[in-house]
Order: sequence, then structure tokens, then C-alpha cells
Amino acid sequence: MKTTSTQTRAVPVPAQGEAPLIFGTGALSGTPPDALASSLLVGRKGRQLLQQAAAGAPTPPGFILSSAHAGTFQDNGRGLSATLRGELSRGLAHLGQIAGLGFGDKNQPLLISVRSSPPQEMPAALGTVPNLGLTVAAMPALIRRTGDARAAWDAYRRLLHAYGVQVLGVAGDALDALLTAALEAEGAEADHELSAAAMEALARATGNACERLSGAALPADPQEMLERTVAAGFAAWSDPRAVTHREEKALEHLPGPALIVQTMVNGAAKGKSGAGHCYTRIPASGDKKLYGKFMPTALGMDLTAGLRMADGLETLEQRMPEAHRELAGWADKLERNFHDAVRIEFAIEDGRLSLLRTRPATRTARASLKIALDLLDEGICTEQQALRLVDPSVVDEYLHPVLDKSAAHSAVTQGLGASPGSAVGQVVFFAEHAVELAAQGVKTILVRHETSPEDIDGLKVAEGILTGHGGLTSHAAVVGRGMGKCCVVGAGELQINYLINEMTIGETTVKRLDWLSLDGTTGEVFLGQLPQIEPTIQGGMARALEWADRARTLGVHANADTAEDARRAVELGAGGIGLCRTEHMFFEINRIPVFRKMILATDPDGRAAALAELLPLQRKDFMELFRVMEGRPVTIRLLDPPLNEFLPKGIRSQTRMAKAMKISVEAIQQRTEALSENNPMMGHRGCRLAITFPEIYNMQVRAIVEAACIVKKEGTPVTPEIMVPLVTTPRELAVLRESTLAVIRRVCEELGESIVFKVGTMIETPRAAVCSSAIARHADFYSFGTNDLTQMAFGFSRDDSGTFLPAYLEKGILETDPFMALDQAGVGAMVRMAVEQGRRVNPRLKFGICGEHGGDPESVKFFHRVGLDYVSCSPFRIPTARLAAGQAALEQEDPDA
Amino acid sequence: MKTTSTQTRAVPVPAQGEAPLIFGTGALSGTPPDALASSLLVGRKGRQLLQQAAAGAPTPPGFILSSAHAGTFQDNGRGLSATLRGELSRGLAHLGQIAGLGFGDKNQPLLISVRSSPPQEMPAALGTVPNLGLTVAAMPALIRRTGDARAAWDAYRRLLHAYGVQVLGVAGDALDALLTAALEAEGAEADHELSAAAMEALARATGNACERLSGAALPADPQEMLERTVAAGFAAWSDPRAVTHREEKALEHLPGPALIVQTMVNGAAKGKSGAGHCYTRIPASGDKKLYGKFMPTALGMDLTAGLRMADGLETLEQRMPEAHRELAGWADKLERNFHDAVRIEFAIEDGRLSLLRTRPATRTARASLKIALDLLDEGICTEQQALRLVDPSVVDEYLHPVLDKSAAHSAVTQGLGASPGSAVGQVVFFAEHAVELAAQGVKTILVRHETSPEDIDGLKVAEGILTGHGGLTSHAAVVGRGMGKCCVVGAGELQINYLINEMTIGETTVKRLDWLSLDGTTGEVFLGQLPQIEPTIQGGMARALEWADRARTLGVHANADTAEDARRAVELGAGGIGLCRTEHMFFEINRIPVFRKMILATDPDGRAAALAELLPLQRKDFMELFRVMEGRPVTIRLLDPPLNEFLPKGIRSQTRMAKAMKISVEAIQQRTEALSENNPMMGHRGCRLAITFPEIYNMQVRAIVEAACIVKKEGTPVTPEIMVPLVTTPRELAVLRESTLAVIRRVCEELGESIVFKVGTMIETPRAAVCSSAIARHADFYSFGTNDLTQMAFGFSRDDSGTFLPAYLEKGILETDPFMALDQAGVGAMVRMAVEQGRRVNPRLKFGICGEHGGDPESVKFFHRVGLDYVSCSPFRIPTARLAAGQAALEQEDPDA
Repeated sequence: MKTTSTQTRAVPVPAQGEAPLIFGTGALSGTPPDALASSLLVGRKGRQLLQQAAAGAPTPPGFILSSAHAGTFQDNGRGLSATLRGELSRGLAHLGQIAGLGFGDKNQPLLISVRSSPPQEMPAALGTVPNLGLTVAAMPALIRRTGDARAAWDAYRRLLHAYGVQVLGVAGDALDALLTAALEAEGAEADHELSAAAMEALARATGNACERLSGAALPADPQEMLERTVAAGFAAWSDPRAVTHREEKALEHLPGPALIVQTMVNGAAKGKSGAGHCYTRIPASGDKKLYGKFMPTALGMDLTAGLRMADGLETLEQRMPEAHRELAGWADKLERNFHDAVRIEFAIEDGRLSLLRTRPATRTARASLKIALDLLDEGICTEQQALRLVDPSVVDEYLHPVLDKSAAHSAVTQGLGASPGSAVGQVVFFAEHAVELAAQGVKTILVRHETSPEDIDGLKVAEGILTGHGGLTSHAAVVGRGMGKCCVVGAGELQINYLINEMTIGETTVKRLDWLSLDGTTGEVFLGQLPQIEPTIQGGMARALEWADRARTLGVHANADTAEDARRAVELGAGGIGLCRTEHMFFEINRIPVFRKMILATDPDGRAAALAELLPLQRKDFMELFRVMEGRPVTIRLLDPPLNEFLPKGIRSQTRMAKAMKISVEAIQQRTEALSENNPMMGHRGCRLAITFPEIYNMQVRAIVEAACIVKKEGTPVTPEIMVPLVTTPRELAVLRESTLAVIRRVCEELGESIVFKVGTMIETPRAAVCSSAIARHADFYSFGTNDLTQMAFGFSRDDSGTFLPAYLEKGILETDPFMALDQAGVGAMVRMAVEQGRRVNPRLKFGICGEHGGDPESVKFFHRVGLDYVSCSPFRIPTARLAAGQAALEQEDPDA
Repeated sequence: MKTTSTQTRAVPVPAQGEAPLIFGTGALSGTPPDALASSLLVGRKGRQLLQQAAAGAPTPPGFILSSAHAGTFQDNGRGLSATLRGELSRGLAHLGQIAGLGFGDKNQPLLISVRSSPPQEMPAALGTVPNLGLTVAAMPALIRRTGDARAAWDAYRRLLHAYGVQVLGVAGDALDALLTAALEAEGAEADHELSAAAMEALARATGNACERLSGAALPADPQEMLERTVAAGFAAWSDPRAVTHREEKALEHLPGPALIVQTMVNGAAKGKSGAGHCYTRIPASGDKKLYGKFMPTALGMDLTAGLRMADGLETLEQRMPEAHRELAGWADKLERNFHDAVRIEFAIEDGRLSLLRTRPATRTARASLKIALDLLDEGICTEQQALRLVDPSVVDEYLHPVLDKSAAHSAVTQGLGASPGSAVGQVVFFAEHAVELAAQGVKTILVRHETSPEDIDGLKVAEGILTGHGGLTSHAAVVGRGMGKCCVVGAGELQINYLINEMTIGETTVKRLDWLSLDGTTGEVFLGQLPQIEPTIQGGMARALEWADRARTLGVHANADTAEDARRAVELGAGGIGLCRTEHMFFEINRIPVFRKMILATDPDGRAAALAELLPLQRKDFMELFRVMEGRPVTIRLLDPPLNEFLPKGIRSQTRMAKAMKISVEAIQQRTEALSENNPMMGHRGCRLAITFPEIYNMQVRAIVEAACIVKKEGTPVTPEIMVPLVTTPRELAVLRESTLAVIRRVCEELGESIVFKVGTMIETPRAAVCSSAIARHADFYSFGTNDLTQMAFGFSRDDSGTFLPAYLEKGILETDPFMALDQAGVGAMVRMAVEQGRRVNPRLKFGICGEHGGDPESVKFFHRVGLDYVSCSPFRIPTARLAAGQAALEQEDPDA
């Protein structure tokens, strides 16, 4: 067989569409095989086919109508241009010449397939229309040639079925029902068991149904049928589903699809024929072993149709050892050619192997890392290529212990997975108990309706957190993610009775100290002690991260509020702190009383006294941070949440606070009421607090600068970056920048020290993004707060979106949760607008992002493309972000590689 | 005097800046006087001066350095270009030649002033720097020429003072203190009482202080002093205050300022000299009468300084009757030339009258209408010119009865003016009482902590509404504005005791049936019965509205929810209904129980049953609307607010509801709790309700279409436009459009009728604005919901912004409340973006706006410029919007006219 493949050629882009891109075994054109066209021109499938053919693999000859025709097709009133018709006829002549057949020749019919090859997966794209060229008139000749009347009529039936569904828009179910009826009538189990007569009747019935259901006649002329199929292939690009998909994904720049026209291989022929696919590595494990399916006397589509069971590749090895050997040889060769583990679709006709498509193989996240490492070590790919093969989500498996559920009964209930990993421990219902037991070395799971700042010490020591209420931004969830601690929230079935230290979950009762196991990724809750698989970031994972660091240009910083967070972040590779939320420092149990005193103060003097008490505490925090970060940038966000968040809500907590502060509960309730808001997300928070109460930010800036000066005096370099949140208008920032600079000057003078610093802002309101050119003049850096920007752009309150967002995703109104993956079309457009405007006005402006999207791989790649300087994410997402950043840099260099 | 003015000339734009724009009495250039330069080139003051000079008025000769130099000044590293220097020297030569003096000539010194003439009022613009050309060396010559040493030294002092403050940046207070000290030392009351020696000492002290405080030497060379002043004039454009102002007001396109250089007139000379200003019509009433101020032996700036009292024009008439007669003559002539009532600043030196500036006179809103009518009737202006003179806010005085406060004690308290006009009535504390008393013809003021849908019948019959809680979007405020009923909300001092039908306001007790008077514009509350001045839209107001309707291209529609609203809207000139809020129909007392049944239903069947009950009620409402509107477009917004808003909040109301519905209070509380949201503004509302519960919109669409078909059958044309609220993504609209069209088709088929309709969307989330090109394909029209768009763009919850927005306005962080006047730089940019994108994709798209900005004149003008098709506002704002729309069309034709 190899002898026939020596003539294989891939042909580069034709100038002015003069000749189609002809490829495959026996192709007559003489252009060198290394000329690979861009996937923008020939689509992804087209590129893979050209590459496979160029590698010399036995490829059924075919040609590609490039995406350049998609544009002219639209301009041409959705008709075929003369150029396109010319390419089509020259291409068909070529294929006919190779096969010694003629398209439309009823005595020597050339059969071809047409399928779409878009630059990316696209809804509504034309699937394969097989056996074009076949007509009732050509049936006798085909039956003569193949000696198989059933298979010939089956081929015609498949053509009509595909044409009806894909070109005429007939519902597939209606046509499938005809097949089912025919099988029942003959008592057959699968189509290949039908008699030739029954198959002919079925084919004719299929044709009649197509005409009846579509109201259109089936073209008698195979040329017309082909042209209508080509037209449908280009027209599919304008299908509303495809258009909306491109709009949602900001893919409007993509060219239309190319179309692949290819000579048919009939795996459904009698004798040594069949179809199958194989993987060069096992998808689940990544182990190197040929793995796949084979079905004798079948077409590729029969493998997925599910009417017949496919065999493993052993069947192929037993029945056609030579074909199997040849396939194995190509598997090796194509891995080296694609620099990746591949999946090969093949067909065999009369013992002759044809490869129908080669593409990168699907694989699990874990396998992706093993394959990348192995391919590099086997010399099959370069480090850059290996990096691009790693699924960034593999990191989660390496950072958190994973539950071994093989031995588990099913979960007793399921909440929302709020912070990944797993936890196994004994149940406690009070933070105090968790603390007591931790002192004795007992591992606990803290279970609460919901948690509050008072519970912080318990949260710290517990193995895992489980709450009955609250969503992904509830206190427990945020704290859990910040600590990288397994957390399941909103498990609505929990009924906790705090009085008797017991809870029920449906029928089950769980008592204090009973064992519980949590899966923080899926939100599953298991009774008892499940084994955990311990994580490590050593070895292969560490190597992949080194590749990423060498490749990436995007900085990866951490959202870290404490020295402990910061230490972990540095260990995980953070280049700085991109977001230190100063309010989290106030939530600490020994500070919140002082902060509350500040809130309850009715005049500036009272506030000033409380702030003076807080100053040394904040200064200490910042000193620790600066020491840990050793000169890396530390971006500190000034107070952001509404003051109301710091006051206790329940009467129990309010009473406790009243006692501690020696004031009446009513006073606390009154203040809480006065500060309560209808829409706190859009209320008196962020820098609005500083416009009304300037003394708060002034204290915070003083604490930062004093800390920086002291640590610098100690000999450790410091790089503080002060960040003003929730800016909407340039004057806010101008005023606050001025007061910030004044404090910095004063403190530096007092301490006789000078520091290098930046003053910047978060861009998290849509207005700030739109008015970026005005704001940029007052900022040294921007950090996009994509959480709030997403909330305000959509008008989706994240806390409340649980009532409708699931329905949006389920019904396909949104393709992805915009809080998980950045909405590139809307929020992304605002980010791009702000960057472009900002950079034009202030070329030295630094750009980062500190929303949770900073740890999402697709979002990280977007931020790289938009030209940000860094992303900042929670410490445990840092390795993921590093991988994605490295991949983004390589993808930008060469999108096709 | 008139003989000298015959030579007056105004010179048009010089090609390539070869000659400066020379104007004024005795100017030597020969270009015709009707060539008026654009205010973009010469600034507003410059244009007025040229116009005055062109009219032949005695204008001190001068020249204008056009705004073209402002750009080159920046490009030139903030230095004077050779072209600019050339113009300056040619201009000075010209002025010197006219006066027979020389700039910088210490024997025959030519004195000039320099001032800025920006295209619009701008913060930090250069004020007047007078007496440039004067130096210590030239003092003897000046004293010789004028024979008045005190005045000469005073002129020098004024130069140094202005130069110090405006060019060197010295604080004016420090220099003023020198004057005060000199006055005290001499026991004088005003500067003109100082001795020549004291004035000389003061002038020298002023110079020394300028040098000491600025650290810069005063230039000895008058040429250098002039050039630095010119530089300061152009540099002021880059002052941060000016830059921020332009950014906030979206004025970045404006060119820089022009500078006016003009020969000094010395009104402070001895003898028949002085300065003053006069109005051609009385600013308060608009009556035609010369009205103004005059101060002998003074400069114009002395009139505003407040050190001396100015006299009326009678003083001028008595002392210098000829000058007065001449002034009166010019007043008449300039009114005809400016086609407007004008304010003239003048100076008299040695009995010779000079007009320093003529500009449109300020006037009250009421006077603006009278003046416009009078000028048109006197043949002084055209209808279009008259229209541009009317202050649109005058409408309020014609639509609502105004309180006559002349007899009033001061207000007993003040809340927020939520709906303009006034109300006088007897206090009741329950809606039921208002209804009872209304039946007896008693006028009532309904006073409540807050109102709820249950109070609607009381709200309807009361004269006015007063609440103790709630903001401008509280129930009372919204209902009040909708009804055009005087309403004051959030009067926090009210303490109501419902049990004894009494309230206290501070020390005052108000009982049931006591009289109260409300001012819905200021929020003032008065005890007792104040007289009201009744409104009318007849006469002059009606004429002005006719002018506006002839001029405008922008449609003016109404926000109207009921047939009654609609009838009023048509009377007031609405061209259609731009926003019918269907939920307000559900709030009606006999419907809300059914709607609540729908909310409490736990399954689609229960919802369907309740909706079936609501259908005929909604249909009836729509039929009435269609009948009133007689074929004008009626834009109906499908359900928008979160369901929670329809449930009662207090335990009393909940109990009442439980009884009525025969269910437990707990069930109601549970459902209320389940539906409560952290940020309802951004929660489960708008079309999100229709994605989760499609049956609600389907019922509403059915009601609309059934109503339309029935009314059409009756012979009345109908134009329904169905509006989907709160869209964020194209698929929402695509899905809802499809289901809407399906219902329309079905109903039309059932009723055998066909209707012409539109299906469109509100653009009220920032994402919708940014993704407009994707959304536009699914919409027949856009209506901008600028209230929500403003909330989300800024992240300002309108309900909560009361805690910080006042501080923002007070501190100048924002120049205007973005909920009152559209934020053009931010929200306006989003509107523009959405219009441009939308029109590109869908050229037939219709654009409107239905936020409250639709009734704000400046915002209406913006919407005209952006190219919307109509604005929609509450019925009582319609005349205001019509006026503004007419003016907008004229302004766009000619911004300078």
C-alpha cells in the first residue's frame, strides 16, 4: 500500500482561486507537501487532512473549496460564483482522472462526499453528505462494479438521508422512522441485514419523504445536487445559531467555512472492508497503546449510530493483520507529524486502508499532562508544543487531595462546590468546638447554616466547611476559597439543631463527631471516612509549570490578604500580590470591635479615635506582607464593602456586641437599619466611602506607607501599589489620588524615608470602562474588577442569580456562566475599550485583572490577547493561570500550531 | 459720537493667520461687517464683540487671536509660535495707529486688555488682565496725559493684581488684603478715595507681593508681560479643572479658546466717566424697559466688586443725558441685531460712550417666554429665533398650580420634592378616609409612613401625598409622578401615630383634617391653607409649543399606564405612548390578589389558572389604551419588576392577604422570603422572569393582541409595539421574540384579524448597549431605559444613592445628578454606541428613550443629536420635551444662532 502513497501531495493556496486545493493519494499536482495552508483558509478539518496527506498517509483524494468562497458566496446573493464553479469542475475532473471515473457519469460514477471545515467548531455547520454523484440511473453501473446491490442502494439511501436533513432541512427523525419500519418489516436488527430489495424500497421511500416533507423536488442531475450541497455548506455560516455563537464568543472576525470534497471509500463493501478509529494513547490514562474501535462492513458513521456494536481493534488485527500493521505504522508516523497524540479515522475497502481524518486525540486532564511529558521525552514534540497539550484544569488534581470514591456509597446530599479539594473529618456545629478539637489534633468538618466573621478561627482550623445556606459568594465560600480550604455551601437539605448538636439530612441523622467526607469540586457530601489521594505539585506538574514560565509574558499575581496567603502564593509562583483586600483584616475577631466602634461613631472625632486604634494593627499586617513579598509588587485595595457588612445581623450577635461595647442593642439595630440598603452592591461602598468619610482611606494609606518605610529601613525592598476601588468618574480618582499623595509625602517626611509606589484604580463599573481615557490620566495602573464589572454589565446580582442563571445555561441563552468564564463579547469588549483608551492617554499605564476570572484558563488567554500586564487570582489558581498564560503566548505566536 | 462709529468693521477669518481679526471703532481693515466668524474660531465673547462692532456700535478697537492658535500653542511646547507673534505685533501696530499711541512706548503708552474667549463657559479660563502696556517708566506720561496720578497708579495696581492672580497664580486674597490695609491706613472707604501717594504705595506693594508669593520676577518689558499673559490664556485650556469639565460634559471636540486683545477705555478717569451695564428688558418680568446699573468714575469690575454701591441708570440719565440717549439708541439697535433681549456693558471716558460687550440677557423662565413672544410680535426675531429664547423649564409654571408663599410662614419641614406642583388639603392618614372624604367633595392630603398598592384609591383622590420614608423611586413618588399629583416623600421628621390619627413634626402636632400645603418641587411642607396660583397652557405657552412642533424632528411620546394617563398625554401633545408599564395594572386593588395567586402558585398549572383570570383584565386595559390613542404607536413593556414587589411587606398586610386568600401567614412569609433578594435591581426581573416562567409574557402578549384585534374590528386603527425589558444578550430577545410572534400569529388566526406590530427591546443594561450589533437583528425598535442604564453604568442604586450622591454634587465630583440630566460622557456614550451599532446592522431599527431623562431639556437635546426617533416622558413633561426637541433641531442647524 505504501507504494501508492508516494505520490501524495498537499497543494498550497491557489492564487485567485484558479485551482482548488487538491490533496490525497494519487493527486496529480506537483507542489511540495510541506506547504500547509492556514486553518483560516481551509478550516480545521481541512488543515488536518492536508497535514495527514502531506505526511504521506493513504488519504482518499479530494480537494478543498477555501473559505475565500464563503465571503463571495454571501456577496453573490448566496449563489455560486463563476470562480467557484470553475474550481468545482476542475477538482471533479482531477478526482475522476485519478479514479478513472466521471462525476455524473452513469456508467462509471465517481462518488464523493462534501463536508464543512470551519475554522472553529460552529453550531449548524454542514455535516458530511456522502455518495454525491449517485443517481437511480447510475445504480446498475454501481451494482455491476461492486457486485453488491444492497450496499449500492444503501449508499443511495445514505445520500438521500443526508441531503434531506442537511440541505433540505427535513427532520432526521422522520427519515429514521422509515429505517426502523423497514427493519421491523424484515425482522432485521441492522441495516446491513436488509435484503437488496428492502434497501431499494427504503431508499426510494427516503427520497419520497424528503420531497414530501420539504416540498422540494430532489434534483435529478447530480451536478445540481452537488451545487445545492455546496451552497448549503456556505449558507450554514449565516444560520442564526452560528451567528449568535460567534457574537457571544466575540468571533465575528472569523472567515466562513471551507468545504472538503473527497472521493468516497466504501467501507460498507462486502469482503475485507470496514471502518474504525484509533487513538495512539489511551484517553483516560495517557499510556502509549493503540486503542480504538473497528466495525467490519461499515461506514464511519455506523460506529456512532449505535445500531450495531463495534469491536475493538483486535478484530481488525485478527481479520486483516496487514491493514492493522499499516495502521499502527501510520499511528507512529502521524504522532511525530502532528507532534501530538492523535485520533485516526480509517476505512478499509477490499483490504486497502484509507485514513479519513487525523486529529489531536481527546484525553482527560490527567492524561494530558502525562502525554505532554512523554511526547517531549520521546522527542516527538518540543517543550512549547508539549506546553500547549496540557489541560490547565489538571492543576486542581495536583493541588488538592482528591476523594477516592471507588469505595463510597452515593452521596448523602449535594450542595454547591465552593472551594475545590476534599475534606474528611468529624462534624462540629460551632467554631469554638472546632478550635478546641484542633488543639487535640482532631480533624473536623464545621457545619453551619451560614458562617460569619465571628467563626473565622473555627474556619481556619477545620478541615472543611459545610453550610446549609448561601451561594458561591457567601462568607463561607469566599473565606474557604481564600484559604484553599474545601468548602460546600447551600446544601439545602441540612436541618441543623444547634441545641442538641445534631443535624438531619433527609432520613439520616448526623451527630457531633460523626465522620463526614466532602468533595469541594462537585459539592457532594458523603457519610463516613472516605480515603483521600494526596496531591503533589512535584515532578511532571512542576516541569510543565517551568515550560509555562519560560513561554509566558503575562504576569501572574495573587489575591492574598494575609502574610500566610502571601507565603503560599509565592510558593505557588506568584510574581506579586494583585489584590490585598484590606477589609478582610477588619473581619478578624480582635479587630472587628474597633472597626464597629468606628462605624457607630456619629462624628469625625469618634471615627478618628477608632481609626487611630486600627492604624497599628493594619500597619503590622502590611509590614508582614511586605516582608514576605520581598520587593514584589503588593497591590492594596482600600476599603471596599459597605459598612453595614461589618455589623452583626442576628439578635444574638447584636446582643453580644452590645454587651461588649456597653451600648444598647437598639443603638446597634438603629445604625444597622440606617446603613441597610436596597441594593448594597450599588450602594455606599468603595471609594464612595472615602468621598463621604475621607479619614478611613487616609488611615489606611498611612498604615501602608508607614509599614513600607519601616520594612524598607529593615533592608527589605518594598513596592506598594495603592488601589482605589469602584471609581466611576475621573474626579473621584483625582481627589483621592491627591489626598493619597499628600499622606504619602507627609509620612515619608515624618519617617525620613522615601518609597517608590503607584496609585491606581480598579475598573469595575461600566462607566469607568467607557470613560477610561478621562480616568487614565489620574492612574498609574488599572486593575479590572471583572466580578463587579460582570455584575453591572449584565445587571446580574451574583448573590441572586441562582434563581435564573441555571435556567439561562440550561436553555442555552448563555453558553457559559459569565462569573466563571469572562463574557468576552460584552464585559471583554469593555475591558478592551478601557485598555485601548487608557494606553492612548497614558502609555505608561499598567493593566491587571483581579476578578475571579484571573484563574480561568480561557479568560487568562483573553487577557493576554487584550494586552494586560498581569492577572491576579487566588493562590490556588496560580499554577492554572501560569499554564494558561504560557499557552496564550504560544497561541498568539501561531494559532494553528 | 455716532460719526466715529461709521468706520466700524468686523474682519473675517484670516487665511493662514496672516492678520489678526481686527474689530472696533476706527479699525482700518476693509472687509464687510456682515462676515461673522464662528464661535468655534473666536469664542463666544469674541463673536458677540464682532457682532456688536459689525452693527456699528462704538466698540473700543481690538483684535482676536483665534482658537487656531490654541492648538499650535500646545504643539509648540506651550510657546508662542512665530505666526502668533506676528499677529500680535501687527494687531498692536494697528491699535497703536488708531489711537496714535504705541504699545510699550513709555511716552505715548497704548494700554490694552487681554481676556479669554472660549467657545463655551469653561472653568479656569483667563479673566480680564487690564492695562497691559503700563510700566513704572510709562507712569509719568500717563499721569501727564490723564492728569490723574491716583487713577494712573490705580490702573497700574489693577494690572499687577490681575497679572499676579491670573498669570502667576498668586492667591487673590493676599493681594486684596493689601488694599484693605491701605484703606484702613488712610481711613478711606473705597479705592477711589485713596490719595495718589497711597495708591502708588499700594501699587508697588502689590507688585512686591506678587514677586514674593510667586517667586517670579515681574517682567519689566511690557511685551514680555503681554506674551506671558497670552501664554497663560492658551495654557488655561489644559488646566485640570477645564479638562475634567470637558470630559464630564463630553466636550472633548471643542477647540481651545480665542483671546481678545482690546484697547482700554478708562471709565475710572475723572470727569464725565464711569461704567455700567444695562438690560433691554427687565430680567424678572420680561417687560420692555431699560434697566441696569451705573457707577461714575469706575471700571466695570468695580460694579461686581461690592466695595461701592452702584446707582441705577437714572444717575447716568441725569449726569450724562447724551450718553444715556445714545445707550438707549444702541439698546434698540442691538436687540434687533442680536434678535434677542441683550445685556450691554459700557464705559464712558470723557463723555464718550463705549460698548464693551453685548450679550443675550439673563432672564427668569417666565420672562423668557414673554420676551420671546414680544420680540416675535415686535418683528425683532423670527419664530425660530423666538423658540430658541424660551427656557423649557417655564412649562412647569404653566402645568401645575404654584403655591403663593408670599403670605406664608416658613415651611414646617421639608422632604424630597417627588412630583412637582402644589397641593392644599386636609390631612388624612388612611387611604380609606381620603376616599370617603372625596365623596363629600373634601380636598385631602394623604399622609403615610409609606404607601403601598393597597392605598391606590386613596392616592387617586387625594390632592397631594406626603410620606415620612422612601426616596424618589418609592411607591408614592412613582405613583405621584405618574398621576401628575403633587408628592413630597421622605420627610424624616414626621412621627405618625395611626392609632390616634395624629402626627408630630418636631414640636408641632397635626391632627386629622388639619390643613396642610405642599410644594412638590421643593419638598416644602406648610401648615395651613396657602393660596395657589392656577396654571394654564393657553395663550403664549401654546404658541411657543406650536413653534416647537413646527421645528422639531424628534417625536415626543408619553410614559402612560392607563387610559386616563393616555388621554392627558394626548392633550399635552404626545405622539404616542413610549412606555406603558403593565405591572402598574397589576397593582390595582382588585387585581393584585389574582396576581399574588399567580406568584404563590407552585407549579405551571397554578400559574396558568391565575394568569387566565388576569387575561381579560389586561385585555380590557389595552383596549381602552388603543381606543384613546387612535392608531398612534402604543409601546407596551412586558412585566418588569421582581415578583417580590407584589407581595405585602408588613405583618398587618400579610395577615390581611392571608385571610383573603384563605392560606396561612407563614406560607406568605415563606414565599416572600424565598423571593427576597440581596440586590433586587439586578435580580430575577425583566425578561429573566419570562425565561423562567414563559407563561406570564405569553398571557400579556395574548392580551395585547386580542385587544388590538378587537379595537381594530371596531374600526379604530391600532399600532401596538411590544417591548421586552432588561435584555442582556441577543438570545434572550431571539427566544422571546419567537414566542411572542407565535402568540401573535395564533391570536390573529383565532380572531381572523391581522395587525401591524413591532417587537422591540429596552436597552438598559450596559452589556446590551455594548452588544447592540448582535441584539439589533432581533429587534424592530430600541427604547433606552436610561434610569436603569445610569444605575448600572455607575453602579449607583438610585434608592440608596441618597447617602453619597449629595456629597458628590456638593464636592463637585459630579457636576449634575445623573438621574436628572443624562450623563453624556458615560451613559450617553453607551447610548451612542448602541445606536451606531444597531443602525449599521438593522437600518430600519427605530430608537427611543423612556427613562426620566426624556423630560429633561438638555438630555432631550442630546437624544436629538444622537439621532433617536423619539423621547418618551411622563405626560406632564411632554410640553417641556416638545420645546427642547424644537430647540435641538434649530441648534443643530446653526449652533451659533
